Amino acid sequence: MSTLSVPECVPPASEDAEQLRKAFEGWGTNEGLIISILAHRSADQRRQIRQAYSNAFGEDILKALGKELTNDFEEVVRLWVLDPVERDAVLAFESVKRWRPGDRALIEIACARSSEEILEVRRAYHALYKRSIEEDVAANAKGDFRKLLLPLLTAYRYGGPEVNLSLAKSEAKQLHDKIGGKAYADEEVIRVLTTRSKAQLEATFNAYYNEFGHSINKDLKSDPKDELLSALRAITKCITCQEKYFEKTIRLAINKMGTEEGAVTRVIATRVEVDMKSIKELYFKKNGVPLVHAIKKDTIGDYEDFLVAIIGEESA
Amino acid sequence: MSTLSVPECVPPASEDAEQLRKAFEGWGTNEGLIISILAHRSADQRRQIRQAYSNAFGEDILKALGKELTNDFEEVVRLWVLDPVERDAVLAFESVKRWRPGDRALIEIACARSSEEILEVRRAYHALYKRSIEEDVAANAKGDFRKLLLPLLTAYRYGGPEVNLSLAKSEAKQLHDKIGGKAYADEEVIRVLTTRSKAQLEATFNAYYNEFGHSINKDLKSDPKDELLSALRAITKCITCQEKYFEKTIRLAINKMGTEEGAVTRVIATRVEVDMKSIKELYFKKNGVPLVHAIKKDTIGDYEDFLVAIIGEESA
Repeated sequence: MSTLSVPECVPPASEDAEQLRKAFEGWGTNEGLIISILAHRSADQRRQIRQAYSNAFGEDILKALGKELTNDFEEVVRLWVLDPVERDAVLAFESVKRWRPGDRALIEIACARSSEEILEVRRAYHALYKRSIEEDVAANAKGDFRKLLLPLLTAYRYGGPEVNLSLAKSEAKQLHDKIGGKAYADEEVIRVLTTRSKAQLEATFNAYYNEFGHSINKDLKSDPKDELLSALRAITKCITCQEKYFEKTIRLAINKMGTEEGAVTRVIATRVEVDMKSIKELYFKKNGVPLVHAIKKDTIGDYEDFLVAIIGEESA
Repeated sequence: MSTLSVPECVPPASEDAEQLRKAFEGWGTNEGLIISILAHRSADQRRQIRQAYSNAFGEDILKALGKELTNDFEEVVRLWVLDPVERDAVLAFESVKRWRPGDRALIEIACARSSEEILEVRRAYHALYKRSIEEDVAANAKGDFRKLLLPLLTAYRYGGPEVNLSLAKSEAKQLHDKIGGKAYADEEVIRVLTTRSKAQLEATFNAYYNEFGHSINKDLKSDPKDELLSALRAITKCITCQEKYFEKTIRLAINKMGTEEGAVTRVIATRVEVDMKSIKELYFKKNGVPLVHAIKKDTIGDYEDFLVAIIGEESA
């Protein structure tokens, strides 16, 4: 569930656009006004504001925001104003251009969106960059990561609840054999993780646990520093328990010496209207402190104000 | 262009459905009536007839046709009545279930449809089989074919006309090096063929010809009996000159000792409303005899009548 708070009476998009224009004009920028509007509008309302702004002033509001804002605040507002599908396309593009083994944006897009959403992202990528995601991934990711990311991003997983239990059992064994033999990038491991439906994979991971007495993710931790293993763990978590995955990703980003703002911004901007309420609850359970307190402690200024406004003040 | 001839005044779908019902009833089946209706209705009209039949008689007309017709005639009518997207999903499913290296249906679907059409086929596959195409391909195709078919079928190629000429040159060289070294299933060969846009690939194949003095397809013929090479040739032809590919496929199927009806049926049922006119023209140019004559010589009965009715009598 979303943590967004939208006022009962939202002004017409044209009025919001005009107010935002005012916030950009004159000496300095009125960041407070920007936050009071944008942090309290739904994706659909933000899209309308962007359209109204472009109609009224002949400029993309993203361009205007880019001129007025800076650093982390600019980044979170930019991601926030982008339509969710376009935002994923932009995130994918920017990740792939400076791809590194620790990248998580591509995995999150491939595993924590529905099959239909990923198609929309691939369409938006065409429209924005005149290329396909897979072309860029193939050109930039290397070795085993390429072998893993290409099918991951091009999959169109079946989304239904049907599960084949005997298949789950046999593929659990297959995974266990390969992982036991440290063949982490084996074709069959990749095939199972990248083609099976989420329901089927959940059954497979359960079969794995029942048969071998520990979770697949535990077996994928044999070398905590191996980046391919870490990516495989991210994939299995993103597929079977995405809220836990996102809670942990925010937690690690905040706890890191000198907070990793990129990850905080990305996860919050992409999850606020999806499952941020559950992520906050999980965060509180795991850390004994509300996420919003941790955010306040680790961030400053308009960036802090914006994050707090979209994840909400309430304690859990 | 289509070779389909649809009468100026088409009766309402409900009337067609009723006539078809009559053709099924009583002693024997009135095949002539079936042909006179179905072979002269567009995909959209056939969809409406199927719907009207189901509404009126509570049965899928495909089921009724399955009971009344047999062999090649049954097969062509079945493919013909299926909605094009559903037809591709059915063809893909049936190909993958009895997959063999010489299979061409999957390659045709992956390479001779637009990116959006392939998405629709993948959607239809989910709806029909509660699984994804890639799951079934991964489970059935083997070795190098699997490595090739998986990215081929999951690609969402960019469809625009933009071309990067220096990339075309460098990838032509890459292809030439790998093919020269007989590394036909090399990762880079597969990457180029399965991710680049059709316009980009055309530029790459032209660069190949200009740089090395012969076409890529000639270099892929070093061992005419190698089935992987043959599949690679089918892919490059399907991408850059699909009408030539289909003309040759029909030609070889007809010329084969004892005509290969499966291929004739598939190609005709899938191309009549797309580019059959050009395929017929090419056929005449290549063989000096109209396709319809060749069909009449090599097929018989209702099957012959149906094929002739949908590809049209005219001489070229």
